[in-house]
Amino acid sequence: MLLLRTPAVLPLAPPPRFLRRLPQPRAVSSSSSSPFQPPPPPGMETTYKFGPYKINAREVFHATPLSYAMVNLRPLLPGHILVCPKREVKRFADLSSDETSDLWVTAKEVGVRLEQYHKASSLTFAIQDGPQAGQTVPHVHIHVIPRKKGDFEKNDEIYDAIDVKEKELKEKLDLDIERKDRSMEEMAHEANEYRALFS
Amino acid sequence: MLLLRTPAVLPLAPPPRFLRRLPQPRAVSSSSSSPFQPPPPPGMETTYKFGPYKINAREVFHATPLSYAMVNLRPLLPGHILVCPKREVKRFADLSSDETSDLWVTAKEVGVRLEQYHKASSLTFAIQDGPQAGQTVPHVHIHVIPRKKGDFEKNDEIYDAIDVKEKELKEKLDLDIERKDRSMEEMAHEANEYRALFS
Repeated sequence: MLLLRTPAVLPLAPPPRFLRRLPQPRAVSSSSSSPFQPPPPPGMETTYKFGPYKINAREVFHATPLSYAMVNLRPLLPGHILVCPKREVKRFADLSSDETSDLWVTAKEVGVRLEQYHKASSLTFAIQDGPQAGQTVPHVHIHVIPRKKGDFEKNDEIYDAIDVKEKELKEKLDLDIERKDRSMEEMAHEANEYRALFS
Repeated sequence: MLLLRTPAVLPLAPPPRFLRRLPQPRAVSSSSSSPFQPPPPPGMETTYKFGPYKINAREVFHATPLSYAMVNLRPLLPGHILVCPKREVKRFADLSSDETSDLWVTAKEVGVRLEQYHKASSLTFAIQDGPQAGQTVPHVHIHVIPRKKGDFEKNDEIYDAIDVKEKELKEKLDLDIERKDRSMEEMAHEANEYRALFS
């Protein structure tokens, strides 16, 4: 079991392979506009596609005509979010040049803000493009992860025999590991915080 | 020690943390146009900057006005290459929108060809953006890695106690691990093969 510094990423058991979005679609609530969950700003949509899943707009904190950025059901570290094309395509090569450009300019702009917001000093960007690269949701998505010194603990017995740095690498890059689901309220609160960074 | 299937990535000792380009710059040879190392096509340059290092054009197999793609000194898997902006910038956020777009459209086009060339079925794309994300050469670079089923062995005693999938994840994403240098001849040969994919 890996002990990380944030409760949100504490696995409760040796984690199985990859993150899987829960199979049940999350229905959009028509009463989502409490003082704590304002409706999405003009230009943003009410639901977004993420492969076979429907993403509630409360989880989405930034959108362009071609891309959107959402908080993560099971973040590996604080600020670990996903940037996706609005169009549902499985492989990176399926994107047009315009979509590719918009996706990465969006990821860059999101990364700058989240790195600052989380007082981090680096960012990990990654696409697991296809099943053999670890992709489980068949819809292109960029992992953006703010990184800071010492963002992983190294106190796990099972890894004592292994070079600490190898362990660190494994943990920091294990992007799609199965982690404990967060509640919609927790995710909506985080999305609200990030949305303000773009206003 | 991790046993991978390709001799090029067989570490000879427990690998230290990250890939570092050798500190000595590689001088450009003025007599590099043998039948086995043709000169770069029109539009390509004779040297490229990679942080403090000078990259011989023989290592570069594709270039656009703003980006270039080169073979890797220490590939993790066959076809593991790097795509860089021509302008030397440290962080992804330092790139202009045009550079960002060109870099990723280039990475996409390179990825499609290398996946096919290596008979792979997926791709890993990653940027280690800043030292805390594992960046060691202070010049933005995308890792592009063709992936296929079973591209890592799982036969190492030291990892017996660890979930096999965790080990697989660690290995597959350990991008900047220190690996054995390849010769310029070996790299130039690989670059020639890839250059033909764009002709």
